[in-house]
Amino acid sequence: MAKTAYVKGGKPLSQLLRAPSGAVDIRSIPTDASPGYPGRGKSDAEASRLVLASVLGDLQERMYADGKAKPETAKRVLLILQGMDTSGKGGIIRHAIGLVDPQGIQIKAFKAPTAEERAHDFLWRITNALPGPGMIGIFDRSQYEDVLIVRVEQLVPQDVWEARYDQINAWEAARVAEGYTLIKCFLHVSKEEQKKRLAARLVGPDKYWKYNPGDLDSRAKWDAYEDAYNAALTRCNPDAAPWYVIPADKKWYRDWAVAELLREKMAELNLDWPAPTFDVEAERARVAAS
Amino acid sequence: MAKTAYVKGGKPLSQLLRAPSGAVDIRSIPTDASPGYPGRGKSDAEASRLVLASVLGDLQERMYADGKAKPETAKRVLLILQGMDTSGKGGIIRHAIGLVDPQGIQIKAFKAPTAEERAHDFLWRITNALPGPGMIGIFDRSQYEDVLIVRVEQLVPQDVWEARYDQINAWEAARVAEGYTLIKCFLHVSKEEQKKRLAARLVGPDKYWKYNPGDLDSRAKWDAYEDAYNAALTRCNPDAAPWYVIPADKKWYRDWAVAELLREKMAELNLDWPAPTFDVEAERARVAAS
Repeated sequence: MAKTAYVKGGKPLSQLLRAPSGAVDIRSIPTDASPGYPGRGKSDAEASRLVLASVLGDLQERMYADGKAKPETAKRVLLILQGMDTSGKGGIIRHAIGLVDPQGIQIKAFKAPTAEERAHDFLWRITNALPGPGMIGIFDRSQYEDVLIVRVEQLVPQDVWEARYDQINAWEAARVAEGYTLIKCFLHVSKEEQKKRLAARLVGPDKYWKYNPGDLDSRAKWDAYEDAYNAALTRCNPDAAPWYVIPADKKWYRDWAVAELLREKMAELNLDWPAPTFDVEAERARVAAS
Repeated sequence: MAKTAYVKGGKPLSQLLRAPSGAVDIRSIPTDASPGYPGRGKSDAEASRLVLASVLGDLQERMYADGKAKPETAKRVLLILQGMDTSGKGGIIRHAIGLVDPQGIQIKAFKAPTAEERAHDFLWRITNALPGPGMIGIFDRSQYEDVLIVRVEQLVPQDVWEARYDQINAWEAARVAEGYTLIKCFLHVSKEEQKKRLAARLVGPDKYWKYNPGDLDSRAKWDAYEDAYNAALTRCNPDAAPWYVIPADKKWYRDWAVAELLREKMAELNLDWPAPTFDVEAERARVAAS
């Protein structure tokens, strides 16, 4: 693959967006910046995204082939999307994940747990939704809801949710040891931008269905959610499973950034095409004679 | 939506590609034609496909919104892809289904049944894989394998597979009654084109993984498979769940045709955006005050 400058300045995007080690305060991180973006801005964002499409397609196909060839040890990628309402989890799936062959992706949106899910440990449904060999898994919300909404709304006693940070760390470390690459993205929007986006869902019938009056109740607890995100980003941020903070006020930047993070992390897997499991010359002769 | 001539000649593509009623003989249907294609040919096929992308996106979003608003009665679409090896099931998913938001599609590839699946009726795993409300389901192979490979390879006694045509008809009629739109596509390639495509999988490491020596064994039974397809297309072809024969020697035509069939059938659902379940004015005021 040709060496292209995917990111302005030469540093990998993962370095530019990595949540700092130690105490993270998202209030101090800009929501409207566009670090590393290689073009001019919104005007060429579609083009930048399409440049990534063919590269991502190749990388995804290698991973898929690898998964078919050796399912037991194949690499898997898990993209975790977290953020306040309207921060763009759906938009990223449409515009960034939509660049990739749908056969290679597995999307799971986590809602309020069902009765069956509540009857199990909070990581049970998460484990069940893990992507198969060679697949890119996308979690729209994740295990982090169990230390975010659950903490803010006090859905379980404090000692229960307090213990979950370590449980999540242990669970993620086990996945990494199994060969998963975790890409944990916090989609960082400002409170003002959220207000605009909620208002935009009230302009007409083609948007009403995206509006949920309950979103305003979460919005009223903005500070508590910021505190909860700070705790999650501070306490579950090891080098092997780091958080990335994606400035998400600019939709075009947000979509590009997640696509580029995916490209960077998949390229790092350095996957070769699997060796043939048959005698190529003999099969060529069989096809010719068929 | 503006009235565009999506198909040359003004007839819906479904009419042009519908398997004839009565005895179907796929041997008499061309594999390299391009009925209804509105452009010049391969040179503008990418453009024709992209015209469909935004229309499909809108239709799919309406269906998705409908599924969220009234899951019990929502419309669902099920696209069934059948065809000989190399006929392009994967290519269609990549190039036609890839036009649609991945959040609105559910892909299921049916392989040789597992031990658990074999312990159930052959329609058990098919029923389990049905798309949810508002979703577009894609079956890469389907219940028809149970009257195709199973018949050709005599995997079950004749009286068992003979009974399955009626069982499939009854199952499909039940789905239609539930609100499913079934789009059953037979991807029709010639034996010569299959040979070229198999040979193309033996040119280098980026293609070897797609090659399966067993495909030549199926190829050796080409006539028996044609007979089995003829039986399936003849016996399971009611107006409510018809077969479409997609000439598939030209990949660009095949991909366009399936995307256009999907557009036509989704447009026929005539879906409105769901009515808001809240007081729009009151919510506008709440957002403004938040």
